[in-house]
Amino acid sequence: MSKYTGTQLLAMTPQEYRSLVRRGEWTGRSTNACYGYCAAEIVILPKEYAYDFLVFCHRNPLTCPVLDITEVGSPHPSRLAPDADLRTDLPRYMVIKDGQVTDEPTDIKKYWRDDLATFMLGEATSFNWALMDANLHFRKMGSFLTNIPCVPYGLFKGNLVVYCKVFKNSHEAVRAIQVTSRHRFQHGAPMHVGDPAAIGIKDLSKPDKIPPVGQAPKPPDEGEVALFWPCFATVRAILINANLPLAIVDYPASYFVTDKRSEELAVL
Amino acid sequence: MSKYTGTQLLAMTPQEYRSLVRRGEWTGRSTNACYGYCAAEIVILPKEYAYDFLVFCHRNPLTCPVLDITEVGSPHPSRLAPDADLRTDLPRYMVIKDGQVTDEPTDIKKYWRDDLATFMLGEATSFNWALMDANLHFRKMGSFLTNIPCVPYGLFKGNLVVYCKVFKNSHEAVRAIQVTSRHRFQHGAPMHVGDPAAIGIKDLSKPDKIPPVGQAPKPPDEGEVALFWPCFATVRAILINANLPLAIVDYPASYFVTDKRSEELAVL
Repeated sequence: MSKYTGTQLLAMTPQEYRSLVRRGEWTGRSTNACYGYCAAEIVILPKEYAYDFLVFCHRNPLTCPVLDITEVGSPHPSRLAPDADLRTDLPRYMVIKDGQVTDEPTDIKKYWRDDLATFMLGEATSFNWALMDANLHFRKMGSFLTNIPCVPYGLFKGNLVVYCKVFKNSHEAVRAIQVTSRHRFQHGAPMHVGDPAAIGIKDLSKPDKIPPVGQAPKPPDEGEVALFWPCFATVRAILINANLPLAIVDYPASYFVTDKRSEELAVL
Repeated sequence: MSKYTGTQLLAMTPQEYRSLVRRGEWTGRSTNACYGYCAAEIVILPKEYAYDFLVFCHRNPLTCPVLDITEVGSPHPSRLAPDADLRTDLPRYMVIKDGQVTDEPTDIKKYWRDDLATFMLGEATSFNWALMDANLHFRKMGSFLTNIPCVPYGLFKGNLVVYCKVFKNSHEAVRAIQVTSRHRFQHGAPMHVGDPAAIGIKDLSKPDKIPPVGQAPKPPDEGEVALFWPCFATVRAILINANLPLAIVDYPASYFVTDKRSEELAVL
């Protein structure tokens, strides 16, 4: 785990990073791997549930920005990373059966079946590069369950989970909105600005999930501005709630890195 | 047909226009109806083929920009126009069976079934409003089959058909690219600029389909710039080619008008 530094991961190409992961030499977070490249969360479902999930994604496009969908039965994301294998190239997975997380393996070779479809959804790190390029700094607050329901479809329903970043003043927050708007396949512009209570968040110092490593988040100081983006934790919770016989997703912060530059997928 | 003028249609609300169509008082083109509102092409398919078609749309997002998908069996586009009925509210339809156009009715009540899913795809008129607002003028050239294959999925495959508009100079063409880029749910930026031969079009004076009413198009003069956008005729041809037992689409230029303003759906 500790044999690679953050700086080393940042400088790797997606091919190098995936190869490291595939060989079992890295099972930690993908956070900050491969500067400038677009990362993807993955959702693997039996074909039987694929249509309903895809309609759900359409109805919640900024929560579930679909980058690509593999051929049914194929673990190769031919359009985003032709040489990759989705069964081995993510650091860690979550296997969900009948509403329970039953395994958190570092590969899913033994779970693979010919009737599985894989959805690749844009991940928010990919707009972090744009924020860094714009010289914007922020504090990561973690993710929070809101009182806002996603637009349901079929078995897929549940409230939105958001990730909160705190910017140092209004000017930087406005600039962050501009910059992230271009990156709609990485969740795009924030869905909320300012008061956490307005979306059902009681205490910004108590994230529900994935708090930043090693520190409790400090609520915004006066003048700081909190921005809230839809977050993939929404989808994990909804998949658990859907009680499907099988669903596989990437473990928190263990997403896939594609061969596409984030800017390649930006609009305008 | 002629009891309403273009100006009257332009000034109507979507509710007024759809009501007219539903009562059988307008079976002509939707072109220029309801200034500023977003129009939609429709594709109605048995559920059995819906997943593959939706993946095809994802793989060709600027050709098939999905605005919404109705519940299976429901003819009501609850998110785009809750009071509308997709069986009656378009001026004319094309019914395709086993690769043949078998009917071109003004309503599809007798074809409706509980297993039909309706896809609503953004239509290019909706960015025409933005071009008009930007005081850009163009000549409509009609649609042309290119030598560019769509990204196939399942039974859905075929070459891209584009619609060509000619702008009077480079400056206006660049401005048109900027303006339409914001409207990615109405096909977005052009997929090609300039030389028609580069995308397999031999003669711009001979469109394959839907020539402008009443005139043969004149090829660009020196200084004029041709821009080419993906066009829904692509989808009609691909659905005919797919040989499904049933598919229903809107007849050329007979699209649906939604309650959404085009600007509501624009990015940035």
